[in-house]
Amino acid sequence: MSNTFGTIFRLTSFGESHGIGIGGVIDGCPSGIELDSEFVQSELSRRKPGQSKITTNRDEQDLVEFYSGIFEGKTTGTPIGFLVRNADHHSNDYNNIRELYRPSHADYTYESKYGVRDFRGGGRSSARETIARVVAGAVAKLVLKQLGVSITAYTSQVGTICLDQPYTALDLSQTESNIVRCPDQDTAEKMIELIKEIKKAGDTIGGVITCVAKGVPVGLGEPVFGKLHAALGQAMLSINAVKGFEYGMGFDVSMRGSEANDLFYMKEGTVHTHTNRSGGIQGGISNGEDIYFRVAFKPVASILIPQKTINKDGEECDLQIRGRHDPCVLPRAVPIVEAMTAMTLLDYYLLSKAH
Amino acid sequence: MSNTFGTIFRLTSFGESHGIGIGGVIDGCPSGIELDSEFVQSELSRRKPGQSKITTNRDEQDLVEFYSGIFEGKTTGTPIGFLVRNADHHSNDYNNIRELYRPSHADYTYESKYGVRDFRGGGRSSARETIARVVAGAVAKLVLKQLGVSITAYTSQVGTICLDQPYTALDLSQTESNIVRCPDQDTAEKMIELIKEIKKAGDTIGGVITCVAKGVPVGLGEPVFGKLHAALGQAMLSINAVKGFEYGMGFDVSMRGSEANDLFYMKEGTVHTHTNRSGGIQGGISNGEDIYFRVAFKPVASILIPQKTINKDGEECDLQIRGRHDPCVLPRAVPIVEAMTAMTLLDYYLLSKAH
Amino acid sequence: MSNTFGTIFRLTSFGESHGIGIGGVIDGCPSGIELDSEFVQSELSRRKPGQSKITTNRDEQDLVEFYSGIFEGKTTGTPIGFLVRNADHHSNDYNNIRELYRPSHADYTYESKYGVRDFRGGGRSSARETIARVVAGAVAKLVLKQLGVSITAYTSQVGTICLDQPYTALDLSQTESNIVRCPDQDTAEKMIELIKEIKKAGDTIGGVITCVAKGVPVGLGEPVFGKLHAALGQAMLSINAVKGFEYGMGFDVSMRGSEANDLFYMKEGTVHTHTNRSGGIQGGISNGEDIYFRVAFKPVASILIPQKTINKDGEECDLQIRGRHDPCVLPRAVPIVEAMTAMTLLDYYLLSKAH
Amino acid sequence: MSNTFGTIFRLTSFGESHGIGIGGVIDGCPSGIELDSEFVQSELSRRKPGQSKITTNRDEQDLVEFYSGIFEGKTTGTPIGFLVRNADHHSNDYNNIRELYRPSHADYTYESKYGVRDFRGGGRSSARETIARVVAGAVAKLVLKQLGVSITAYTSQVGTICLDQPYTALDLSQTESNIVRCPDQDTAEKMIELIKEIKKAGDTIGGVITCVAKGVPVGLGEPVFGKLHAALGQAMLSINAVKGFEYGMGFDVSMRGSEANDLFYMKEGTVHTHTNRSGGIQGGISNGEDIYFRVAFKPVASILIPQKTINKDGEECDLQIRGRHDPCVLPRAVPIVEAMTAMTLLDYYLLSKAH
Repeated sequence: MSNTFGTIFRLTSFGESHGIGIGGVIDGCPSGIELDSEFVQSELSRRKPGQSKITTNRDEQDLVEFYSGIFEGKTTGTPIGFLVRNADHHSNDYNNIRELYRPSHADYTYESKYGVRDFRGGGRSSARETIARVVAGAVAKLVLKQLGVSITAYTSQVGTICLDQPYTALDLSQTESNIVRCPDQDTAEKMIELIKEIKKAGDTIGGVITCVAKGVPVGLGEPVFGKLHAALGQAMLSINAVKGFEYGMGFDVSMRGSEANDLFYMKEGTVHTHTNRSGGIQGGISNGEDIYFRVAFKPVASILIPQKTINKDGEECDLQIRGRHDPCVLPRAVPIVEAMTAMTLLDYYLLSKAH
Repeated sequence: MSNTFGTIFRLTSFGESHGIGIGGVIDGCPSGIELDSEFVQSELSRRKPGQSKITTNRDEQDLVEFYSGIFEGKTTGTPIGFLVRNADHHSNDYNNIRELYRPSHADYTYESKYGVRDFRGGGRSSARETIARVVAGAVAKLVLKQLGVSITAYTSQVGTICLDQPYTALDLSQTESNIVRCPDQDTAEKMIELIKEIKKAGDTIGGVITCVAKGVPVGLGEPVFGKLHAALGQAMLSINAVKGFEYGMGFDVSMRGSEANDLFYMKEGTVHTHTNRSGGIQGGISNGEDIYFRVAFKPVASILIPQKTINKDGEECDLQIRGRHDPCVLPRAVPIVEAMTAMTLLDYYLLSKAH
Repeated sequence: MSNTFGTIFRLTSFGESHGIGIGGVIDGCPSGIELDSEFVQSELSRRKPGQSKITTNRDEQDLVEFYSGIFEGKTTGTPIGFLVRNADHHSNDYNNIRELYRPSHADYTYESKYGVRDFRGGGRSSARETIARVVAGAVAKLVLKQLGVSITAYTSQVGTICLDQPYTALDLSQTESNIVRCPDQDTAEKMIELIKEIKKAGDTIGGVITCVAKGVPVGLGEPVFGKLHAALGQAMLSINAVKGFEYGMGFDVSMRGSEANDLFYMKEGTVHTHTNRSGGIQGGISNGEDIYFRVAFKPVASILIPQKTINKDGEECDLQIRGRHDPCVLPRAVPIVEAMTAMTLLDYYLLSKAH
Repeated sequence: MSNTFGTIFRLTSFGESHGIGIGGVIDGCPSGIELDSEFVQSELSRRKPGQSKITTNRDEQDLVEFYSGIFEGKTTGTPIGFLVRNADHHSNDYNNIRELYRPSHADYTYESKYGVRDFRGGGRSSARETIARVVAGAVAKLVLKQLGVSITAYTSQVGTICLDQPYTALDLSQTESNIVRCPDQDTAEKMIELIKEIKKAGDTIGGVITCVAKGVPVGLGEPVFGKLHAALGQAMLSINAVKGFEYGMGFDVSMRGSEANDLFYMKEGTVHTHTNRSGGIQGGISNGEDIYFRVAFKPVASILIPQKTINKDGEECDLQIRGRHDPCVLPRAVPIVEAMTAMTLLDYYLLSKAH
């Protein structure tokens, strides 16, 4: 039951890193939406490996095949099945970990839970699984676009290199202009330098992605357990390597109530707030202001530096990870964050109509 | 659909701040559990208003009435209905906000979504709703206790006063020894001083609660969308005033992979990790180490300092909030965080058996 | 998870026959609905025991107390908690079955599943549980009324006494004019005679209830697993003592396709069918014609005639059931069938908006 | 949300009659199960078109491709994606119905609901969708086999030709020995004759399938809304063309309680009942006796005899259905009924462990 996301707009995903491919079923998509497959493919390209010098060089085209739910170019309201085939998997790279538990990977926990695991490339626990999310997210974006909702994420921190300005001070249209997906060019260059250095050292680094959704209608969110930010948090925390989520003022709890409160005012006949420390959500329901949040990613667990670990028999072993890995997932995670945001917002938009 | 939490162990809650009471239905509780109602009541007392000088002085006994699901002192596996009646509600305190939108409250969004709202004390959006969670969480704790799982939360930050040590360096048994629920007495005193000062000023302050779960069995967590930390995050973010969630290393992304990875070793025949930056969860599944996380709370939106706002007609107004409010929710939120943790862990424990 | 019904409009119910009462939580009810509590009470009165000479003489007023979700007489969109207290329970009547398994009751299966059971009056397995359904169904009817949907059920068969005309040949407004709730007076009298005779003999009898929903909008139903009739079937089969469900032509499979097909035609600008063997549902989706179906009820298992059975230790015993029981549940089940129909149709109406 | 079936063991299906194929995702399958793909294929062959003279002659091999969830021949606990490609679709046969609504088909309701429809072969509303159910059902059967549960369905009625004996008087091992799947050879021959005659006339006929599950453990079923028979009923009613469901004594309500009650007795240390009018389920929970039920199928709506209908513009039209259709779906529906039974029982078995 864990491989389905959403209540009305739902993605059920399947597939492993070194199996036949990654696929899914999108259910509950409104009918009559033009399925712009070029757009879907372009979203996949933002996620795909080998796209730059600071990502893994696994070479995948990540072409999506749609199997159903589309007729004469438009969605029909029936489920959209799809598959993205794996092409460039070097499964032999993983023979040496068949019996080992890689540190901070899911090897030990999957094997404990299921009694068996597909060890090739991490199997189902691989971030390659997020392909299905990007496909479904792209479809969700196509629907949201018609509603006037836009979603932009960007890399705001890599290791200790941090973009200090709030998103409102940035030109987010610059995000895609560099390979680390940071809208500030100076910071982007520093981040890229750091990642290159880290890569050279066979090491990895984490960071933070910031995401902004504009144009979200007032009224999305289901009190009390389905608060909109709780759904967004769950969505983000379900992405591989994510360790934290905050929205609005988040963990910055130094302000007093008198400083933190967002005062209402009218602008052109609609209600607005002067500040937006609420992050566009009050009482779990969107208030029409920008929704923004930050997502923390840990460094990739697959480092090329030798490590100590244990095998299935509990014996201590030396581990030398092979294979092709990202020194930093942030650049490729930007479209994934956007995809999960799009799916969540569309799902909650559809839910809000059922009142 | 939003007032139900959980998949197998489920709480459906109801009630408003100034209505008849707050209640709920616990479904899926295992049978044969001794329902220690004194324990449930003691958990409610940790949450109840008026318990100390730094909380609201609304005076509620918060006595729980159980209606079903218990026979001869034990749970029967059938749903447990309950109600906690409201006694000391001063609804007149809210007459002046009938037509106003209080800043950073849910007034505007509820009214936009539902076209109507029970404005007395915030109605359903009041944190009084969390009573139902504490009752269900107490029941969950009774079940978890038999499994050897214990859960302890504490106040680790109030405004800028921050407990710097990790939980492993603290004596968590001291948490209940002071009214702010911080296990370090020196820090606790500073926090209490700050809250008193803030209260005097008619203002409010936020902070952070840290929570630790020990003895959690290996194997809880449902890949891929039901990762255990995603469920915990959703649970925490559904609590009133919560703005962020992080587990394990969280937003501290300065470490490299070679520093962050938790190396495995054997201890007394079971697998352990030397460090625990994973926060007890790997690949979304518990690995047997302590689960720990941090939850950020914003300052209470109800301040006694006059504010500007607008009314339903979009006219600017002066707002003077009356009523009795917490200057800082952290002390009373500690048992709520524990309750949501208990419900989540028990739900996932039960789910893990369905394989 | 089994005590919640519905996806958007949801009832979570609790309570036992001889406990404090039967209650529930209605979630997802649209806001702004005038909660006509007299109507709710009148629906409960149609279900309550002791209403006539052919029902059990347990004497309950079945007064509903609403706890939340209503403000100034209208629903607010927040959950509606309620309780109907048990008054006239003679729990001592059940002391003799504490250790016994009554034939065709749920005693053995509940005890096997849960290891314990509240044996007083059948505990949770008692049909008294359906009180919660009637309350929620009454609320659903209030919403449906605004949509122009009406629902009428009636007793169409008791034992071998069968109302042969289709519902279209009956004056359904006569249903409530007699105590067996059969719209044809002659048949009603025969049914009443039979039930009286059966009651005198200490025996029980089953039958069939027919239900008709008029004014259902085109488009309700969620292909493929959520077909509207599948949801109605599940709803009916969840009622105590129900053994079968058929809609439209049902089990009457003697017709050929050329006879059974419903031909389309236009009437006043809308699509209609000449016949309605489809029962108002095609491909799992309502087509605007009347929805009608039949529900089979077995005879009540509690007979006053002595029976053989076994006890918990597997020893053969003589059983003499005491207590006050219905000789035939049909008359009181009519409002229950309507209630489940109303909840299902409203839930599917709300779901249909989320497209 | 309607294309997913089950709570723990879940099938999400996709695909249309004349699209690329029919596929699905099985989630929640226990790990370590040998995935006997020959068995899965043999189940598909029992369902496939063109298997005999009394089925449609659409020629499909219905070969299943598995995409994930299986490693070294065994299930891993991760989702099993699969696809069965369509080969022999004659989409041109449907050009003439592009603008028409076929009587008693889903054309009108799908178009009303979604504003668009894939008219080729009925699109998603085609019974070809049940392929996904047969695949998932076969996997469920493999798991159930290890638990000692067996499921057998058979054709018990075609038109007015009815198998009068109860299943206990039949040799169910003979079911597959004839093309109509009726275990009594004499009756089978009559049924086959009737279907041939009907086919020759360009007409269609319905009937009844009986299903028996043996070896079901005591304790499956989730009171109160998730009664086991309610789940089975919903499962059966979700199959194309099904109009009714009854279990145990079903619609045969002529017996009195004293005749209908199943008396308990002990046999070899376990509890049994002398009769089994309860159909193996009491209070919604399996009691260890055989579960049996009957499912009514209407005649196929696609007849070759000319019919009157209307088009999208509401104009009256003549309709001549082309394409290749079954004169009677019963023989091919037998494995579908079994598949839905298997999925339901396995799902409830897994749910019963989560207590």
